[in-house]
Amino acid sequence: MTDIQALTFDVFGTVVDWRGSLIREGEKLAKRKGIEGDWATFADAWRDLYQPLMERVRGGQLPWTKLDELHRIGLDSILSRFGLGDLDEDEIDHLNRTWHRLDPWPDVVQGLTRLKRKYVLATLSNGNVALLVNMAKRAGLPWDAVLGAEVARAYKPQPEAYARTAGFLGLKPEQCMMVAAHGGDLKAASECGFRTAFVARPLEHGPNKPGDAGGSGDWNVKAVDFKDLATQLGC
Amino acid sequence: MTDIQALTFDVFGTVVDWRGSLIREGEKLAKRKGIEGDWATFADAWRDLYQPLMERVRGGQLPWTKLDELHRIGLDSILSRFGLGDLDEDEIDHLNRTWHRLDPWPDVVQGLTRLKRKYVLATLSNGNVALLVNMAKRAGLPWDAVLGAEVARAYKPQPEAYARTAGFLGLKPEQCMMVAAHGGDLKAASECGFRTAFVARPLEHGPNKPGDAGGSGDWNVKAVDFKDLATQLGC
Repeated sequence: MTDIQALTFDVFGTVVDWRGSLIREGEKLAKRKGIEGDWATFADAWRDLYQPLMERVRGGQLPWTKLDELHRIGLDSILSRFGLGDLDEDEIDHLNRTWHRLDPWPDVVQGLTRLKRKYVLATLSNGNVALLVNMAKRAGLPWDAVLGAEVARAYKPQPEAYARTAGFLGLKPEQCMMVAAHGGDLKAASECGFRTAFVARPLEHGPNKPGDAGGSGDWNVKAVDFKDLATQLGC
Repeated sequence: MTDIQALTFDVFGTVVDWRGSLIREGEKLAKRKGIEGDWATFADAWRDLYQPLMERVRGGQLPWTKLDELHRIGLDSILSRFGLGDLDEDEIDHLNRTWHRLDPWPDVVQGLTRLKRKYVLATLSNGNVALLVNMAKRAGLPWDAVLGAEVARAYKPQPEAYARTAGFLGLKPEQCMMVAAHGGDLKAASECGFRTAFVARPLEHGPNKPGDAGGSGDWNVKAVDFKDLATQLGC
C-alpha cells in the first residue's frame, strides 16, 4: 500500500452524522413553529427515500438529477405526514439544505488534518458539489478536492463514480483508497481497483440499531475512527 | 455586491507565476543534464502553444483532452529545439508536470486565507483537476473547491465553463465574482452574469513585457494584489 496517493471518502454516515443532525434540525424547526414531531422517524423516513430516488437516476427513469433535488422530491413527499404541510418555500428550502449543515463525527476534523499531511483527501460522495462545499466550510473539513457523483455524473455504487474520480485525480485506481463505513461502497470501489478502509460508525442509525455489517469484510484497513485510521496509515 | 457568495479564480498568471516557475525548473533540469539553454524563451514557446491547442478542443478538431495532455503535445513539439531531445519518458513526464509545481505570487496565500473567511473560494481554471490539486497541496492554496474546464468539459472563454461552475456551486452567476489578471477572461465571465475583479500581474510575461491590458476595463473591483482584493472586499 506504499503507492497510495489519495484517500477518497464516503461522506453521509462515514464523515458526518446525518441522522443526529436531521433530528437536531427537526427539533429546532418544531420549536420555532410550535409543533410536535418524532424527528428520529422523520430522519429515517427521509433517508429511506435516498436509495430509491437515486435508483431512478441509475436506471434511467430520471435524467441526471443532483442530490439536492432528489432530497427535495423526497422531502416534499413526507412533509404533510410530519405536520410540515404549511411550510412556505423558503422554509422548505432551508429544511432541504439541512444536508449542507450536517455535523461531523467528533474524530473527523482531527483525523483528516493528520491524514492531509500525507495524502490527497477527496470526497467520493453521492452528495452534490454545493452540498459538500457548504458542509465542509461550516464544519472545517479540509478536503483537497470535492469530487463524486455530480462531477462523475454517476451515483455510487456505479463503477463510473469510482473510475472517473480516480481519473480526475490523475491516479490509477490502486493509488486510491476508498474510506467508508459501508461494505457495499467498499465492495464496489474494490471491484474498480481501489484499496479499501472500513471505518466503523456503529451509531449511524441511532443507538437502537446496529451499524453497517461491512466490518466483517476483507478490507485493507479496518479502523474504529479517523484518528485510528491516521495512526494505522502512519500519519 | 452584497450577495456575492463565491470567488472563482483564474490560476495561470493570476494565482501563480507560471513563467518564473518554468524558467526555474528549466534551469534545474539544465544543471542536472549539463546542458545550456534559454529557459525564458523555452517558457514562452511552451506557453505560446497553450491557446492554439485549446482552440483545437474548443473547435472540435480534438475530442475533450485535459490540459496535462495538451501541455504534453506542446512540450513534445519543442523538446529538440531546446536541446532536450534525449530526455527519457520519466524525465519528459516530470518536466510536463512543472505545471503542477508552479509557485504562487507572494501575496496569494495570505490574501486567499483572508478571503476564505467570508467567501467560497473555487478555481475556475483551464487546468485539470489533478494539476490544480497538486499545485494547491504544494503551495498551500486553501481552495474550497477545485473546479473549472475539466469538470465543466469546456475551456474558457467558452460560456459553459463559467455557467457550469456557478451551477456546481449551486449559485446564480451574479453570486459569483471572477478574479483574473486577464481582461478576456473577465469579459467572458461578465457576459455570463458573473461579477468581476481584475488583479494586476504586471510581471506575468517577465520584466520586459507589459502585463495584460485588461486593467483599463470596467470591472467591479480592481486590485493590485490578493491582499488588496481582500481589503476591498471587507475581509
